[in-house]
Amino acid sequence: MQTAIPMPHETEALPQPYLLFLGDTVEPSYAKTAFGLRDWARDRCLGEFACETARVSTGLPFLAPVQARQAGARAMVIGVANPGGHIPAAWIPLLVQALEAGLDLIGGMHMRLSDIELLRNAARALGRRLIDVREPPLNIPVASGAKRTGKRLLTVGTDCALGKKYAALALAHAFQQRGVDVDFRATGQTGILIAGAGVPMDAVVADFAAGAAETLSPDADPSHWDVIEGQGSLSHPAYAGVSLALLHGSQPDVIVVCHEQGRERVLGYEHYALPSIEETIGLALTLGARTNPAIRCAGISLNTGALDPEAARAAIDGLADRLGMPVADPVRGGDAFKTLVNACLGEQAG
Amino acid sequence: MQTAIPMPHETEALPQPYLLFLGDTVEPSYAKTAFGLRDWARDRCLGEFACETARVSTGLPFLAPVQARQAGARAMVIGVANPGGHIPAAWIPLLVQALEAGLDLIGGMHMRLSDIELLRNAARALGRRLIDVREPPLNIPVASGAKRTGKRLLTVGTDCALGKKYAALALAHAFQQRGVDVDFRATGQTGILIAGAGVPMDAVVADFAAGAAETLSPDADPSHWDVIEGQGSLSHPAYAGVSLALLHGSQPDVIVVCHEQGRERVLGYEHYALPSIEETIGLALTLGARTNPAIRCAGISLNTGALDPEAARAAIDGLADRLGMPVADPVRGGDAFKTLVNACLGEQAG
Repeated sequence: MQTAIPMPHETEALPQPYLLFLGDTVEPSYAKTAFGLRDWARDRCLGEFACETARVSTGLPFLAPVQARQAGARAMVIGVANPGGHIPAAWIPLLVQALEAGLDLIGGMHMRLSDIELLRNAARALGRRLIDVREPPLNIPVASGAKRTGKRLLTVGTDCALGKKYAALALAHAFQQRGVDVDFRATGQTGILIAGAGVPMDAVVADFAAGAAETLSPDADPSHWDVIEGQGSLSHPAYAGVSLALLHGSQPDVIVVCHEQGRERVLGYEHYALPSIEETIGLALTLGARTNPAIRCAGISLNTGALDPEAARAAIDGLADRLGMPVADPVRGGDAFKTLVNACLGEQAG
Repeated sequence: MQTAIPMPHETEALPQPYLLFLGDTVEPSYAKTAFGLRDWARDRCLGEFACETARVSTGLPFLAPVQARQAGARAMVIGVANPGGHIPAAWIPLLVQALEAGLDLIGGMHMRLSDIELLRNAARALGRRLIDVREPPLNIPVASGAKRTGKRLLTVGTDCALGKKYAALALAHAFQQRGVDVDFRATGQTGILIAGAGVPMDAVVADFAAGAAETLSPDADPSHWDVIEGQGSLSHPAYAGVSLALLHGSQPDVIVVCHEQGRERVLGYEHYALPSIEETIGLALTLGARTNPAIRCAGISLNTGALDPEAARAAIDGLADRLGMPVADPVRGGDAFKTLVNACLGEQAG
């Protein structure tokens, strides 16, 4: 796992460093946001805080909000999501405690922090902010379609939830390691918390979605790279419109197609077969060429998390042979990943 | 021009018949909504009302709100839009007069009727409604991608603002004339006013756009047709995402591609060439096959409004020869349009 992701400097940043709040969670899979922040924004997470009944930990020091504030924390992030997306009554006293300690609250659940009158009143009285990363910025323009300066990479998926954010984070980190001036550009809630800025693409009104993508990766130095977190898939029966708006607005020079080895049906849409990687590349290049005729696919990020190392190696090598382009699993790292990064940068050899 | 468009029966309808309000408009091009309602919903427009300074008329009887109410009107529609989309102070007394006469107010301007405190208070006191057709319905679901029963036609454009609504209205009317059970399904503000129902696709949050399109044309009798108003274009640098969500959610069996003869650049995006009609057909069929593998293009609706009759005839015939499919301008009517309708219905001859 990585610990330092380049932070964007153009858009308004969230208050950091964070204290991570784990609620009363007992199920680790509900704490993905907290784990993601620990893994990708470790240098901006000072500790964790939770109800006494919680049975999940990030391994970071347990800090009361007052201690966290003294250590420099500026906000407490809700790092867990329960299935209904609501905020249980048991959390409220601890959330108020954070406000009283001088921390802003940051959430991205279905129920907004500001929907709770007690929190609203406490925040107002204490001069603190309730920040919802599901809320898109105001005054997003309609896309202009005008070409912007700088270089852009977009991760494009064969489906939802198979590693587009992870791939973008790993690529941004690797670009930085190579000495490239780079920003990770977040388009979903967890990514926004990690980057400290971004646009929740799924929450933007449809007519402004491509415009939102344009504002996310503004004009930059010709040698600067934005590595943009993909959303949805161009073949998804519900979300393809979001994916196309993100593709058009991002104007990527390079795409990296993300796939999970073995996934054959659209997640939650079992009556839909997943498109092949080749189809996904073809569709993304055809559609993406509309706003950037120079678009190319640099390679594949293959999620082999469910496979043993030998099977993963065989899957990665087999796909690379089939496609004739670099294939890597960012989690496994190694030379394959370096080759993928080189291909993004337009270099042939590692 | 037509006078009777089939009205959808599944979605909640706007209060009708209408009194058309023309404000203080002196420029006919600002009164497109009123003219569209006169032309396409003539049987549901009882008259017009305006400030004394207005210099535009639909030709319908001038009725004070009280007279219109007595004649059966249930709502007054703002039938004009000035460039800024605001509601001038000079209109307010006349809008209040309509509320006092027992009419609801329906608007679709950028400034909402409910943004004006005086109107809000008057409506509340009088028990009347301020209805904004730019507001999408609440609780739109995420698209399921499940195939629905009944037949669907979607008009697909090479660009914005070149006749997709007009083509859909004319096709719905022609289907009805042929005795087909049909509904016109509106996706934009004027279309919604004409149909008395619909979903403003451009105002839906991106993640729900395909779901909104699914709810717009629900399960129906196998022989029933929904004729769906297209939005944007799949090649538009700002709006392609909306168009793709509408295409996926509509699951059309048939598309009719709409083009304006002579348009070569994207309207307002002069640095973008318009895609060819062939490219537009290919892209729509490729993308549309994802949710309806049986999708086909039945023909072309060619807007030849700027041409003299002879040049229009040559353009229509030339394009039909080039594509080998029916091409018609709904405004000009005639056999070409009948042939297009037959092709939509899957019949070879007129």
